Amino acid sequence: MAKELTPRSENYSEWYNDLVIKADLAENSAVRGCMVIKPYGYAIWEKIQAALDKMFKDTGHSNAYFPIFIPKSFFSKEASHVEGFAKECAIVTHYRLKASLDGKGVVVDEDAKLEEELIIRPTSETIIWDSYRNWIHSYRDLPLLINQWANVVRWEMRTRLFLRTAEFLWQEGHTAHATKEEAIEETFKMINVYADFARNWMAMPVITGRKTENERFAGALDTLCIEALMQDGKALQSGTSHFLGQNFAKAFDVKFTTKEGAQEYVWATSWGVSTRLMGALIMAHSDDNGLVLPPKLAPTQIVIVPIYKKEEELAAISEQADKIVASLRGKGYSVLYDKRDTHKPGWKFAHYELKGFPVRIAIGPRDLENGTVEIARRDTLAKEICPMTSLEKKIEFLMSDIQNNIYQKALKFRKDNTHFVNTYSELRHIVEEKGGFAYAHWDGTSETESKIKEETKATIRCIPMDDIVEKGKCVYSGKPSERRVLFARAY
Amino acid sequence: MAKELTPRSENYSEWYNDLVIKADLAENSAVRGCMVIKPYGYAIWEKIQAALDKMFKDTGHSNAYFPIFIPKSFFSKEASHVEGFAKECAIVTHYRLKASLDGKGVVVDEDAKLEEELIIRPTSETIIWDSYRNWIHSYRDLPLLINQWANVVRWEMRTRLFLRTAEFLWQEGHTAHATKEEAIEETFKMINVYADFARNWMAMPVITGRKTENERFAGALDTLCIEALMQDGKALQSGTSHFLGQNFAKAFDVKFTTKEGAQEYVWATSWGVSTRLMGALIMAHSDDNGLVLPPKLAPTQIVIVPIYKKEEELAAISEQADKIVASLRGKGYSVLYDKRDTHKPGWKFAHYELKGFPVRIAIGPRDLENGTVEIARRDTLAKEICPMTSLEKKIEFLMSDIQNNIYQKALKFRKDNTHFVNTYSELRHIVEEKGGFAYAHWDGTSETESKIKEETKATIRCIPMDDIVEKGKCVYSGKPSERRVLFARAY
Repeated sequence: MAKELTPRSENYSEWYNDLVIKADLAENSAVRGCMVIKPYGYAIWEKIQAALDKMFKDTGHSNAYFPIFIPKSFFSKEASHVEGFAKECAIVTHYRLKASLDGKGVVVDEDAKLEEELIIRPTSETIIWDSYRNWIHSYRDLPLLINQWANVVRWEMRTRLFLRTAEFLWQEGHTAHATKEEAIEETFKMINVYADFARNWMAMPVITGRKTENERFAGALDTLCIEALMQDGKALQSGTSHFLGQNFAKAFDVKFTTKEGAQEYVWATSWGVSTRLMGALIMAHSDDNGLVLPPKLAPTQIVIVPIYKKEEELAAISEQADKIVASLRGKGYSVLYDKRDTHKPGWKFAHYELKGFPVRIAIGPRDLENGTVEIARRDTLAKEICPMTSLEKKIEFLMSDIQNNIYQKALKFRKDNTHFVNTYSELRHIVEEKGGFAYAHWDGTSETESKIKEETKATIRCIPMDDIVEKGKCVYSGKPSERRVLFARAY
Repeated sequence: MAKELTPRSENYSEWYNDLVIKADLAENSAVRGCMVIKPYGYAIWEKIQAALDKMFKDTGHSNAYFPIFIPKSFFSKEASHVEGFAKECAIVTHYRLKASLDGKGVVVDEDAKLEEELIIRPTSETIIWDSYRNWIHSYRDLPLLINQWANVVRWEMRTRLFLRTAEFLWQEGHTAHATKEEAIEETFKMINVYADFARNWMAMPVITGRKTENERFAGALDTLCIEALMQDGKALQSGTSHFLGQNFAKAFDVKFTTKEGAQEYVWATSWGVSTRLMGALIMAHSDDNGLVLPPKLAPTQIVIVPIYKKEEELAAISEQADKIVASLRGKGYSVLYDKRDTHKPGWKFAHYELKGFPVRIAIGPRDLENGTVEIARRDTLAKEICPMTSLEKKIEFLMSDIQNNIYQKALKFRKDNTHFVNTYSELRHIVEEKGGFAYAHWDGTSETESKIKEETKATIRCIPMDDIVEKGKCVYSGKPSERRVLFARAY
């Protein structure tokens, strides 16, 4: 197979770009910063969507859809939100084109200027809370638990496929509650849904924690997050859940009548994950041969490749293969039998390795004689001969074993690259040279955090929500610290 | 129930608006012409999406995602396309806001003007064919069968919820083929998928046909469509499938190497349905009491309402209801047991009628004694007593009978409102006074078609694809006609 990837050890960033392109996941489009998600990449995203959507519905949420446009004035209504979001964004100013004077093209019709410019949503708190004002009157209307699957636009200057693009796909949950406690509970519930999804579907271990004030969502009182470690030692924020207090309720005047008849502002949360998860999934598990996909998210879990020289051999193999396809599909697995005669088995092996199919079954004439097949697993690249009689059981085992093994491997990688550092020079050494997660004491001030970021390019990824209570001294200022926080350079 | 609908007979248009709002399907947003699809409306749309998506995949299509932005110059590349689509559209001209001088808001940063304006996609042929150029090299890359679920924007001046909105949700299939014949076959295949979906899922009879040149998609050589008749006698175009010839391949220079080694332009189709289907679904079946939903698309198919006076009665009823819920859910039906004590049974009955739940089960103390329940069906409003022992069988029957009955009712309505007219005055009488479909002879010219449209506001909905071959004379010009075509006023 000619399509080789740059090895990770040589240039991690190029390896990633190569992989995204060569595995047919996504590509850049003619529009600066906007990607095309190709069918194979989109099929993985659909699996992610389906799993998350079910988790949202199982926790009582419904989907809805709000306009892509936000009137410019809406952004100014919540003071800190405008700071964070109304900067780099796509602005619609006109609503008509007309033929150009030379007759060769079209130009903007200056007569069709909007009275108020519209912003393409970078996130939808404002337009949604403007609607909620009419939906919420009484405590009986609460909680309101809504999610939206949508495209959003943030005019990023430096973009990378999946990780940072001007337009991306995401879901955004927006909930309204009668009490502060209930809203906080929702904020925690949803970050736990994300952590559960990351671990059990993406096979990706994550640290759950709280963002510092510097890193908080614009408009939130508290931002919870899940942070994953990529193979190059950088962190990737994979999902966030925000407790918004009454900020948006006040900005959009959303009050409700309590059971006791009082008028109170509503409490809010919002939470989201995006196609960025695709980047995390790729970087967490893949290797120099290509994608490694957890079986639960692989569009096709099993590929069967015939090994033959003569047409009669293919016919006999196909008869067997068709039976296997039928029986495995009957068990709920997704299976592809690739009997194309336009490509050699070697090409196919490399192709499906590149695409991350979790299991490959090869069948040759000798296998038919012996009543066996050859099974290769993508995660370890190990091969073994399996009797036909125990194939179903073997596949069942492999699906759960590969899912688990990928997770364990990523977990081990994270453990091996997690460091408890006690001095600033140790912290610098880790984040600047070795890479990985560095747990260090911090004095809790934004100044210290900013200084460290400036000097090392590392940020506090989160204040972890674990049980480790250990007081100490800030590695930077020497001032007292209540607990260690998680530092890393990040995507 | 206080929420009454305007009767259809009084004001059909108001009835529709009332229903959309009061059944909580959608509402207008703060952005002119853009709707909010509320959770109940969106749940129906999700059912539509799921059924269609499966049909697309079963016919070999994959989903992908292309940018929402289209460079302005792309529109000029296909001459007739620009005529149709590059007019009323949302135009992004800037990519940054800044604080206003008075510090109170934000203004467009004039320094952040795009070199080339971006158009929010009104449809995606251009951006997609610009990508296809890099995807298609050889006949081996064909056919390329791709679909996209997306939002699109057309700056409509007069908007109505679901039927015509500035932003709407849709799917757009874009396929590429090696031969003209194969592309034409695809165009027909997909209009048949839509017709099948309309009939078997939406319970909506449709006429399949071909658009006249006047009504064709901008850039197509042939447009096929499905046309449904609404209860007010107006037609609603519910889906279209276009044979695009080599127009977009030529505009975007997409060639492939044939088996014989020649270079040829690729053949294209595109096809789409949108949230407009929600409008069709509502108007095809609903009545003065509210929505009537076919069981296959109802978010909740069955609601159970307890009728009681004392708490002990509710407890006994709930025990029975919980069993019914479990058994019906086990059979794959969606069931809601509404035991809220905040609303009376009468309110609940009216509420679920308004929302179009296909079946209502009421259980009172006497039912418990007798081992029965009361079943009401939404389509006929008929009630009957059903023994508990045969409830499952009854529900199974009702789900298919209601689905079928709604279809038959709509089919009968269409038959009763379809007229074969032989003179222009008859045609005018039907389309201007009676309403409904009018089959009339037409001379095949655009002039005649335009004249009739101008004088009667009726358009040729399609040249039907049926077997009726009957020559005659054009009702307008008296010139010879090969066959009757379908006239109606339309949404």
